[in-house]
Amino acid sequence: MKQLFVIKVGGNILDNPELCSAFLDQLVQVDGAKMLVHGGGKIATSIGNKLGIESKYNEGRRITDEATLDLVTMVYGGLVNKQLVAALQARNCNAVGLTGADGNLMIAKKRNATPIDYGWVGDLNASGINTGWLQLLLQQGLVPVVAPLTHDGMGRMLNTNADTIAASLAIAMSSSFSVRLIYCFEKKGVLRDVQDADSVIGNLNKASYEELLQRGLLADGILPKLQSAFKAIDAGVPEILIGDAADLLQNTTGATAGTLISA
Amino acid sequence: MKQLFVIKVGGNILDNPELCSAFLDQLVQVDGAKMLVHGGGKIATSIGNKLGIESKYNEGRRITDEATLDLVTMVYGGLVNKQLVAALQARNCNAVGLTGADGNLMIAKKRNATPIDYGWVGDLNASGINTGWLQLLLQQGLVPVVAPLTHDGMGRMLNTNADTIAASLAIAMSSSFSVRLIYCFEKKGVLRDVQDADSVIGNLNKASYEELLQRGLLADGILPKLQSAFKAIDAGVPEILIGDAADLLQNTTGATAGTLISA
Repeated sequence: MKQLFVIKVGGNILDNPELCSAFLDQLVQVDGAKMLVHGGGKIATSIGNKLGIESKYNEGRRITDEATLDLVTMVYGGLVNKQLVAALQARNCNAVGLTGADGNLMIAKKRNATPIDYGWVGDLNASGINTGWLQLLLQQGLVPVVAPLTHDGMGRMLNTNADTIAASLAIAMSSSFSVRLIYCFEKKGVLRDVQDADSVIGNLNKASYEELLQRGLLADGILPKLQSAFKAIDAGVPEILIGDAADLLQNTTGATAGTLISA
Repeated sequence: MKQLFVIKVGGNILDNPELCSAFLDQLVQVDGAKMLVHGGGKIATSIGNKLGIESKYNEGRRITDEATLDLVTMVYGGLVNKQLVAALQARNCNAVGLTGADGNLMIAKKRNATPIDYGWVGDLNASGINTGWLQLLLQQGLVPVVAPLTHDGMGRMLNTNADTIAASLAIAMSSSFSVRLIYCFEKKGVLRDVQDADSVIGNLNKASYEELLQRGLLADGILPKLQSAFKAIDAGVPEILIGDAADLLQNTTGATAGTLISA
């Protein structure tokens, strides 16, 4: 099968113009089929503050009320997405920005209001992905740039976690491509010692992951990423890479710099 | 040649939820190939006010400074565009929202800073339209929903007048489709007597337009629309219709309710 890179870039990279520019310079050099999923960054919060939109949280998780939904729709779907697309076009990369509503790319289910009402949040799984539409775009050499927004099919946009979107896209596309899902953030990979930035765990499979878990050697911050990574592995994504945005190109090769996760 | 409807909807319709919903109900019933171009509406101004972005004008025309460019990118390219796309998806219409950067749809030239510096404003003409990309989307039965934003190919989004975008799209697509360009607003058409909402001029060609101009029978407000309409006629668009958003369906037929402009 043809290779496809599903690349997720986090908010910390987007918030830093130099890191973001260096990341995009590498992204356009990635050979073959690729798509980018982006998070939000701090800009939504800062614009929300200026607009007087109060950030509400429940157990550390943000609640998407009506005003927040409009905020993320305009900031993630408009500002961040279009700035990335324009920056890629300037690098001769034919990018196309998409939310879940565009071409019915990602249809999600609004999360149940019980036990906790998170508001206009969409839970996405791979069956909600319009793979034919993505295949059409990739066949044309286009690079989809996907904002962390889905829709409910009933006229509403929904706020959806970007890591979840990247994993769902990777799972859905695995039936027609050999997918490597790459999570780009500001660390070199999963670290054996969170105090030592160079203590990257080069390879993880299910057995070695369980062992590290039991020995309590994994930092809390990385656990949600690893849980969703192994969920994607279980669902048929052959390779998942967690690494530094600055190592993107190397992490598309066989000699990876970050943490390569496989079954 | 196959027929294509290029439909522009103005801000006054978008600002009114009932008018907008009724317009979309009709839009999805328009047979065959179609695309929608939308303006901004008052929401950009109201969000801009809350963000403390000062509206600057020169001779009545807005100046797009850096902050205003970010504002229109997020409001037009994000909020307004995605709400329209989600609303069309809810009506089983497979819409895809696009700015000029997406798939390199519309590349424009930043307006010269002399004699007046309008800031980040893009002047678009038909040669800047990526017709192949639009044809691909139309062949798939997709309905492009185009925001009034172009890009400069050097990493910048540009603010561009929605009427101009609609005309440029109509001109560019006229080489492969029989295009009817429909401007939807809140009046029934071009009026003979601006005090009489029913005094619609049913047909205008260049000769009758010149005559009305000389007799001073056309209201100032409609002149820019008519000028750009006849520019499009000169450039090969066979039919242009100016009419009420509420008459959209009728205005796609032979028995038009608005003002039909031809050579």
